[in-house]
Amino acid sequence: MTTGVVRRRMGVEERRQQLIGVALELFSHRSPDEVSIDEIAAAAGISRPLVYHYFPGKQSLYEAALRRAADELAALFLEPHEGPLGARLLRVMGRFFDFVDEHGPGFSALMRGGPAVGSTRTNAMIDEVRQAAYEQILAHLGVQEPPARLELVVRSWVSLAESTALIWLDGHRGLPSEARGRIPRAELELQLVHDFAVLCAVSAAYDAEMAAILLRVLANEPADGPFTDLVTRLAALAPGASLPAQRLA
Amino acid sequence: MTTGVVRRRMGVEERRQQLIGVALELFSHRSPDEVSIDEIAAAAGISRPLVYHYFPGKQSLYEAALRRAADELAALFLEPHEGPLGARLLRVMGRFFDFVDEHGPGFSALMRGGPAVGSTRTNAMIDEVRQAAYEQILAHLGVQEPPARLELVVRSWVSLAESTALIWLDGHRGLPSEARGRIPRAELELQLVHDFAVLCAVSAAYDAEMAAILLRVLANEPADGPFTDLVTRLAALAPGASLPAQRLA
Repeated sequence: MTTGVVRRRMGVEERRQQLIGVALELFSHRSPDEVSIDEIAAAAGISRPLVYHYFPGKQSLYEAALRRAADELAALFLEPHEGPLGARLLRVMGRFFDFVDEHGPGFSALMRGGPAVGSTRTNAMIDEVRQAAYEQILAHLGVQEPPARLELVVRSWVSLAESTALIWLDGHRGLPSEARGRIPRAELELQLVHDFAVLCAVSAAYDAEMAAILLRVLANEPADGPFTDLVTRLAALAPGASLPAQRLA
Repeated sequence: MTTGVVRRRMGVEERRQQLIGVALELFSHRSPDEVSIDEIAAAAGISRPLVYHYFPGKQSLYEAALRRAADELAALFLEPHEGPLGARLLRVMGRFFDFVDEHGPGFSALMRGGPAVGSTRTNAMIDEVRQAAYEQILAHLGVQEPPARLELVVRSWVSLAESTALIWLDGHRGLPSEARGRIPRAELELQLVHDFAVLCAVSAAYDAEMAAILLRVLANEPADGPFTDLVTRLAALAPGASLPAQRLA
């Protein structure tokens, strides 16, 4: 080990990881096609040729950064299997929006089509994250072999979380900073948890197997949890009925 | 005009339209990168060089086919502003699933990343369709300047319809024909209408402006409409409560 002002030489893997971190930071704040290798080199404090020594080109560095982001994103869905489901999902959504907030422009560029989108490898990574989220939710539901209807609800909800985050980011685009967060993040996080419950409920309304799964989950919800809060608010919305539509029944 | 067996010569625009139709048909059944210009030429009954006379390459023909599909898809959301909203949405969903069923593999390839995905032009076309659907729904709701929460709900629902269709198509991938339609199409069409109602309700539970919009829409729903059917079924799911979760309150 060296000391003092003499910069320690990094090992190959350490340098690669540093470059990936620097690239991810840059790709997170601007669309990947606006970030040059020169900038990445400058931010990492090394020369442009040295960047190419570790990565053959921007595409491979972008994919490595994406790989790290995908791993981080997939890990957000890991949550101890303890306590009511609503509270677990709410913590997951909190971490998900932390991630989206931190990597906003990069997240948008990736999901909406950037230079590397459409490539088989980046699409496979996006699908991997969706699959990881899907499997985590199933594990929380305690379901091993999901019926087709549950698979549809969970996968559609994962996609709903994705699109809600993108629409939320879009709403900020070009807005002055004081106008950011027109819809507070916390509201969206809670709303997505509620969306999960109501999408399950819609499916359960037409299918006994889904109804059994839903009732099992709800049986563990506390009186002060997000699901109970939703029902209370829906009831308040239409006095005398639990869902507004009941007014018409 | 010529008669009998002599083939009539097509005008330039007519020939272009014919090629677009042939290409769209081929791109609808197989992923675009599996369709060759030779095949398109054979299906159109013309020579390969003649195809290139009308379109410089496969990409431009693919984009023209996509343009036509995007216009068709956007037009599906046009629906007379008459009668209750639930029934209107249900008719739109019927036409949407007709489209998805007809153009299945092409629709999947486009939305999941094919050769032309990630190109600025194709992404712009996809966004145009989403925007058209969004604007149609707003017009049906009779809202000119949507609050941010309504914009979010409508845009997320459009994306939910997209992902539900993709997941439904995926579920069929590689399955023998008798296993196709594990979840009946009609169930998904109705479910998406219900999803729209409950996503609005979740947002309305936290926002007075959304509640006012929702109550106005629901006031026009008939006792035998899809929304009332949902509430009846949700109530049946949990006797004594309108939403299953109420059991816990």
